[in-house]
Amino acid sequence: MAVSSAQVDNGVNVQALLDARNALTDAPAAAQFKWRATCTWKKGTHSHSTVQGFFGLGDEQKHKTTFSFDADHPEVFASEDHGATPVEFVLVALGSCLTAGVAAVAQHRGIQLRSVAATIEGAMDLQGILGIDSDVRNGFDDIKVTFKIDADASKQEIEAIVAQSQKRSAVFDCITNPTNVTVAVV
Amino acid sequence: MAVSSAQVDNGVNVQALLDARNALTDAPAAAQFKWRATCTWKKGTHSHSTVQGFFGLGDEQKHKTTFSFDADHPEVFASEDHGATPVEFVLVALGSCLTAGVAAVAQHRGIQLRSVAATIEGAMDLQGILGIDSDVRNGFDDIKVTFKIDADASKQEIEAIVAQSQKRSAVFDCITNPTNVTVAVV
Repeated sequence: MAVSSAQVDNGVNVQALLDARNALTDAPAAAQFKWRATCTWKKGTHSHSTVQGFFGLGDEQKHKTTFSFDADHPEVFASEDHGATPVEFVLVALGSCLTAGVAAVAQHRGIQLRSVAATIEGAMDLQGILGIDSDVRNGFDDIKVTFKIDADASKQEIEAIVAQSQKRSAVFDCITNPTNVTVAVV
Repeated sequence: MAVSSAQVDNGVNVQALLDARNALTDAPAAAQFKWRATCTWKKGTHSHSTVQGFFGLGDEQKHKTTFSFDADHPEVFASEDHGATPVEFVLVALGSCLTAGVAAVAQHRGIQLRSVAATIEGAMDLQGILGIDSDVRNGFDDIKVTFKIDADASKQEIEAIVAQSQKRSAVFDCITNPTNVTVAVV
């Protein structure tokens, strides 16, 4: 059974989020964010990406540190496997977005989490990207996320937390609904 | 002007990819891949993800090493900024997928690349994920990718390489078209 939110600590400052919601309700321009990454080609399919600055709350913002990522293709594609494949980054994005949501929703509902683990698996028919069959898409056929959660709550409460996390997840929306992408060369 | 592919070296083994295409055309079952990640909740919105095994070519495969990623929310969301945000991982995925494609297509077309750099920017209205306005989506409004490419090729040839990379990009497809995601709790 859930205890009151004052007694639980999942490490999420729900009050600050509620305050932010109130503040941004009054000042919607501040809610307009721009997230950014840069990508530099190294060699072959290997690239190096960084994440540092973003725009939000009406101003330029910075992460505390610059986050760096190597991406590559694996050896079965005759590449050197210097990093995760780009599509695996998508799975990391989805799992981490839903997991952060689970922690925030549980905190808001006064439910203490003990552990949360997710496996994310995306099926892909490589006949798409290899150009073998034009009826096969390049991306994932489908993605399955499986959560294992230990918490002071019933199975129904846990399932409701996961459902609410999905409902508010930016990455879940990004994958399940289309987004316009413009690619330019300067 | 482009030189013949034998004289250029972008580090992509195009012949191996063409051989793979031929092999998978004859054995489509081997083209069925499953990409995976695991995500473990740390505290608050902070999680730790790993990427190591995947299924493909009819068997379990492994990356040479286990790739690890911390994800978190930034301090402006009252979080501790232990990693890039989940949505920034999506931008890294997109930039690295298109960049790997540029290298592969350029190699195939006999065009020597000297440098490739991309900036990826995704606009997001936080009124969505904060539940302020139900007409605002949770994900990106749109994403802009800007390439700066130095290569032994005309502007038209470079633009054609980038266009072909988009056409074959798994992550570009994943973001611009909907994918079914199933979330379960065990």
